[in-house]
Amino acid sequence: MAINIPHFADIQKAHNRIQSLIHRTPILSSSGINEMFNCEISFKCENFQKVGAFKFRGATNAVRQLSEKESLYGVATHSSGNHAAALALAAKQLGVPAYIVMPENAPEIKKKAVQAYGAEITFCKPTLKAREDTLEIVKNRTGATFIHPYDNFNVICGQGTAAKELLEDVSNLEIIMAPVGGGGLMSGTAISAKSMKPEIDVYGAEPSNADDAYRSFMKGELILAGPPNTIADGLLTSLSPLTFQIIKQNLNGIFTVKEESIVLAMRIIWERMKIIIEPSSAVPLATIIENQDFFKGKKVGIIISGGNVDLNNLPF
Amino acid sequence: MAINIPHFADIQKAHNRIQSLIHRTPILSSSGINEMFNCEISFKCENFQKVGAFKFRGATNAVRQLSEKESLYGVATHSSGNHAAALALAAKQLGVPAYIVMPENAPEIKKKAVQAYGAEITFCKPTLKAREDTLEIVKNRTGATFIHPYDNFNVICGQGTAAKELLEDVSNLEIIMAPVGGGGLMSGTAISAKSMKPEIDVYGAEPSNADDAYRSFMKGELILAGPPNTIADGLLTSLSPLTFQIIKQNLNGIFTVKEESIVLAMRIIWERMKIIIEPSSAVPLATIIENQDFFKGKKVGIIISGGNVDLNNLPF
Repeated sequence: MAINIPHFADIQKAHNRIQSLIHRTPILSSSGINEMFNCEISFKCENFQKVGAFKFRGATNAVRQLSEKESLYGVATHSSGNHAAALALAAKQLGVPAYIVMPENAPEIKKKAVQAYGAEITFCKPTLKAREDTLEIVKNRTGATFIHPYDNFNVICGQGTAAKELLEDVSNLEIIMAPVGGGGLMSGTAISAKSMKPEIDVYGAEPSNADDAYRSFMKGELILAGPPNTIADGLLTSLSPLTFQIIKQNLNGIFTVKEESIVLAMRIIWERMKIIIEPSSAVPLATIIENQDFFKGKKVGIIISGGNVDLNNLPF
Repeated sequence: MAINIPHFADIQKAHNRIQSLIHRTPILSSSGINEMFNCEISFKCENFQKVGAFKFRGATNAVRQLSEKESLYGVATHSSGNHAAALALAAKQLGVPAYIVMPENAPEIKKKAVQAYGAEITFCKPTLKAREDTLEIVKNRTGATFIHPYDNFNVICGQGTAAKELLEDVSNLEIIMAPVGGGGLMSGTAISAKSMKPEIDVYGAEPSNADDAYRSFMKGELILAGPPNTIADGLLTSLSPLTFQIIKQNLNGIFTVKEESIVLAMRIIWERMKIIIEPSSAVPLATIIENQDFFKGKKVGIIISGGNVDLNNLPF
């Protein structure tokens, strides 16, 4: 079966569809950080997006694309992270029911956020099988449409609007970089960037401890993640066939970084920029820390994916 | 001796003098926080100011006002906090030598910041007497001009530019609030606010554990702080005759708040707004937490004073 790959025109349409519902997030830079690494970095701050993460873009685009009948039956997903909150709020804003399957050991703060957005939560055992089985049951009971966190055309188009805004606002970028988890953000970023500015270099940034995208990219075939063990808890998932194909076609490369570089990058951004970012968002700056010669003198755009951290459990 | 009190015209002149040297910081709001407290809060984010604090405004205005001869001899102060870094960078930007007296037990991160801005540091014992004595010696040796952190006409004029920007950008405020330490920010805020919008209510916010301004305001005479014990480490100092007189004449009142409200307010701002603020900056929101009926339905402007925290020593 041929995979239906989004084009930039689809991202443009998605942007028109969602822009009144999302924040156009600010782009920040820090002269201190630029001096530290001898390059010029523009940070697209999706930590200031609704629900504190870029995921709200894709979820909103997916919910907006439902037919009238589908809207009545609602949307469903399984997630313990930002996608659950994003889908819950996107559905609430558009008056659509949302059903979220969450592992019973999900952080209390995530459960509360999803509840506060009015979604119905069904708890399950913390295994992928339990999540998928429970989701099936919920879908059968409600008739809701499953919105996958990244293996979804409309979600990828929504995520691509962040890079579109970044390149609209900062036109002289030579490199654009995003963290890679399931690949939804990376795919949307690559499509927007290569279409708006064909000469730009697009890189993914991934923890060495969760390097399935790197290994898939190098081998040319999709390799699923082993059990990953990284502080970047938004990047635990593997690429899907759809996101892998987009990444394979559009990226110049994928960098992998050490855990201690991720914590250092996170700390530098917190201390210098006074903004709260989650560990996953620090992976691109960690890449610059580990590859300073490569990035020297370059104008680099980085997508800060989100700012949802547990303040009771910080790495410093 | 009559005290020379700044007028709004002096703040306007200060603003013209410094605006190419400072950041015009953003004003942020959070629909989540507004819903939580049933009011509409505009946060003026001086945590994004250079050196991470409003202090850079006053320091820059003071250094810009030096005569040519004074500029050659430089500026001096004693401080272990934001004023030291602010004066060091303000001096560096204008090519003026800076001499900072710091207690030997000052946090390593503060020492490094001041050093990085090229100031000469003289360490002393951690007592007020040792600081003042050491400053005298430094002044005598260098001929530098002492720039007091708040008991200084030019410094107060600089600090008042933050509220001026806030009211220029958000014209419908009914209340403006700032934290009170030595009273420099509070004084400048009050002068700007009452001149630009005479009907606005101006309130100070102070920790109960460092309530010298509150007690001075209520009694009508300047009372010095006992040994204060608050997490809001920017608010340990007492008012000066100059700042007390301005505060007495211009404020509608001063609220005092509990330590646990300060920590809660700080946490709410970190979690909801994804910005890093120091404990002192959380005191105005703590005031709203403790006085929800009073602020209900109101449009409130809050000056976020800074974002310099020790990430190794957080209250959560």
